[in-house]
Amino acid sequence: MGDIKQVAILGSTGSIGRQTLEVISALPHRFSVIGLAAGKNTALLTEQIGRFKPSFIYSQDKTPPINAKCQFLSLEEMASHPKVDIVVMATSGKWGLKPTLAAVKAGKRLALANKESLVMAGEVITREAKQSGAQITPVDSEHNAIFQCLEGEKQKAARIILTASGGPFRGYSPTRLAKVTPQQALKHPSWRMGQKVTIDSATLMNKGLEVIEAHWLFDMPFDNIRILIHPQSIIHSMVEFADGSVKAQLGMPDMRLPIQYALSYPERLGNPTLPRLDWDNIKELNFEPPDFESFPCLKLAIEAGRKGGTCPAALCAADETAVELFLSKRIKFTDIPRLVGQAVEEHKSIAHPTPEEILATDAQTREKIKQMVGDNR
Amino acid sequence: MGDIKQVAILGSTGSIGRQTLEVISALPHRFSVIGLAAGKNTALLTEQIGRFKPSFIYSQDKTPPINAKCQFLSLEEMASHPKVDIVVMATSGKWGLKPTLAAVKAGKRLALANKESLVMAGEVITREAKQSGAQITPVDSEHNAIFQCLEGEKQKAARIILTASGGPFRGYSPTRLAKVTPQQALKHPSWRMGQKVTIDSATLMNKGLEVIEAHWLFDMPFDNIRILIHPQSIIHSMVEFADGSVKAQLGMPDMRLPIQYALSYPERLGNPTLPRLDWDNIKELNFEPPDFESFPCLKLAIEAGRKGGTCPAALCAADETAVELFLSKRIKFTDIPRLVGQAVEEHKSIAHPTPEEILATDAQTREKIKQMVGDNR
Repeated sequence: MGDIKQVAILGSTGSIGRQTLEVISALPHRFSVIGLAAGKNTALLTEQIGRFKPSFIYSQDKTPPINAKCQFLSLEEMASHPKVDIVVMATSGKWGLKPTLAAVKAGKRLALANKESLVMAGEVITREAKQSGAQITPVDSEHNAIFQCLEGEKQKAARIILTASGGPFRGYSPTRLAKVTPQQALKHPSWRMGQKVTIDSATLMNKGLEVIEAHWLFDMPFDNIRILIHPQSIIHSMVEFADGSVKAQLGMPDMRLPIQYALSYPERLGNPTLPRLDWDNIKELNFEPPDFESFPCLKLAIEAGRKGGTCPAALCAADETAVELFLSKRIKFTDIPRLVGQAVEEHKSIAHPTPEEILATDAQTREKIKQMVGDNR
Repeated sequence: MGDIKQVAILGSTGSIGRQTLEVISALPHRFSVIGLAAGKNTALLTEQIGRFKPSFIYSQDKTPPINAKCQFLSLEEMASHPKVDIVVMATSGKWGLKPTLAAVKAGKRLALANKESLVMAGEVITREAKQSGAQITPVDSEHNAIFQCLEGEKQKAARIILTASGGPFRGYSPTRLAKVTPQQALKHPSWRMGQKVTIDSATLMNKGLEVIEAHWLFDMPFDNIRILIHPQSIIHSMVEFADGSVKAQLGMPDMRLPIQYALSYPERLGNPTLPRLDWDNIKELNFEPPDFESFPCLKLAIEAGRKGGTCPAALCAADETAVELFLSKRIKFTDIPRLVGQAVEEHKSIAHPTPEEILATDAQTREKIKQMVGDNR
């Protein structure tokens, strides 16, 4: 209590990474940046290093902006370094998997924003966390909300109600969806996020992946996880208990709030830079069931989660590749679920896979998608 | 854990008392009725004694339905009896004050539904509870919701958002309210409750009393308690924390849910007889600010709470007397706030009052209201 926690941010130049740095900047008496790891945005990383003066850095760039005071570490070394108190896992895609495992094995507080590592390897990550005593605090607003609602409860939840904004194409027919452009799909109605997760929010794949995450994080059967469309993104999710009582967590749609809670848990810290709900301007909250017909990714993800094994890894890899193809205008919006569905259906799942088998599935599935669209570059 | 708790219900023939017996009947492996206390509904008390076979009874009736197996106790004796684990305080009005104090001094689990005792004597009750270690679990759906939302939190709430249905006359002008009949006022849109609390819900006095209750139960300054009209009565109240995060508790508007939680806390018990929220049928939740002009009782109560001393006792007594006069059609609906306002304004408050001074204020204020309307019966 009261001491300054040393935070390593893996993925510091992405949306979550940058917002984590905003939170830390607002709370310098509680958090300090000890490590920064980035992909290819060397310009921003250099700026962040100048400002936050980390001890450790990682960069995918071949000429990292290293200086005498900085030590270059691999992602796994940084995630498990004894001087690191909290690991913020904000890299995207499969790159999060091995450092997540390293952080969990080292018993770190893991503020987990990387969806794919839990989706792909939820079984091994949660098992390792149980063994080491690592505390996973989810950063995703939905799982963070559930985590908050469960705090202090003596029993498991009976049911989880994952809310979803419905994305920019809520109410669209499949025909209309086929004509959607990347520019339209990148305009999310309520959240500011990275490109990949914004497209996943438009296809509702994001919500499907969150169902798998919730399954692992809260040890919840798929049958007891329900999705509810809530366009205002103010209720971030809900939990129903054995007695029928429901708890919800609400807040402005701003990722800094769940990021801060994931860092400060079990404490809450006053932070005047965070926005507050203004009940003078909230007249109604709306709800509707999700449209499984127009957004088949939802069902694809839940089915892959139920099948388990390497199926969720195949799903993630297929989706990431398909989203890239959509963003570069090589396929239609509605091709995303078509390609993902075919790839997962043809995938031969391995039960209780090792991290290596998961990463092999990832590579094979990416290749497969590219073959399916005739991309032989 | 697992043993059967012995429950004494003070006010067993009223609405909360009867619903408490429904909950206990559904959970016979966890709760047993050891005591029943009632006012003048001897017929129902006799029936309840036959069914639940309590060891202790109390009846205001001069010829209580006593038999050889039953011991007749005073309310205070029952509330503090060593064999009683949980006291459900469901009497109405000032009758709850002394037994509430007795239960609290004896260190009992107190499932508190009697609003007036906390409003009139919040200072002494909360002080005694702190000394004895008595756990007060609020039964009022709003305070029960707040209590649930605070569970497990390491810090106090920053703000409490008390929701209110708005009653049957939401949107009415003062002119229209002047013509309202007792029959209309007794039709509450969402809750089944006793007569007094139903009228208090129509004037919003009930919500004002709840603000005072929340002040004492959660040690919350009046400035940090906000009222929000929410006609569906599904969100039972909310709590805002230092970081801007808000937790809400939701459920069907059914008093058995908070009653059960007040009994079972910190556990939650599965009970198939309790209703559950059905998200297929909840399309929207609405919110609006309260109308302080049409419902002056709200401001009267909050002001009396801020003044403290014996002012809230004067408020309660004036309101209870005025409600009786309205129910017997001797005054208009809009006379209730007028009489209460005048009585509280003219009241000479005593700071840090004893229970005796509080009860004296009660008696004097009732007399005063009767004089004000020329009732010398």
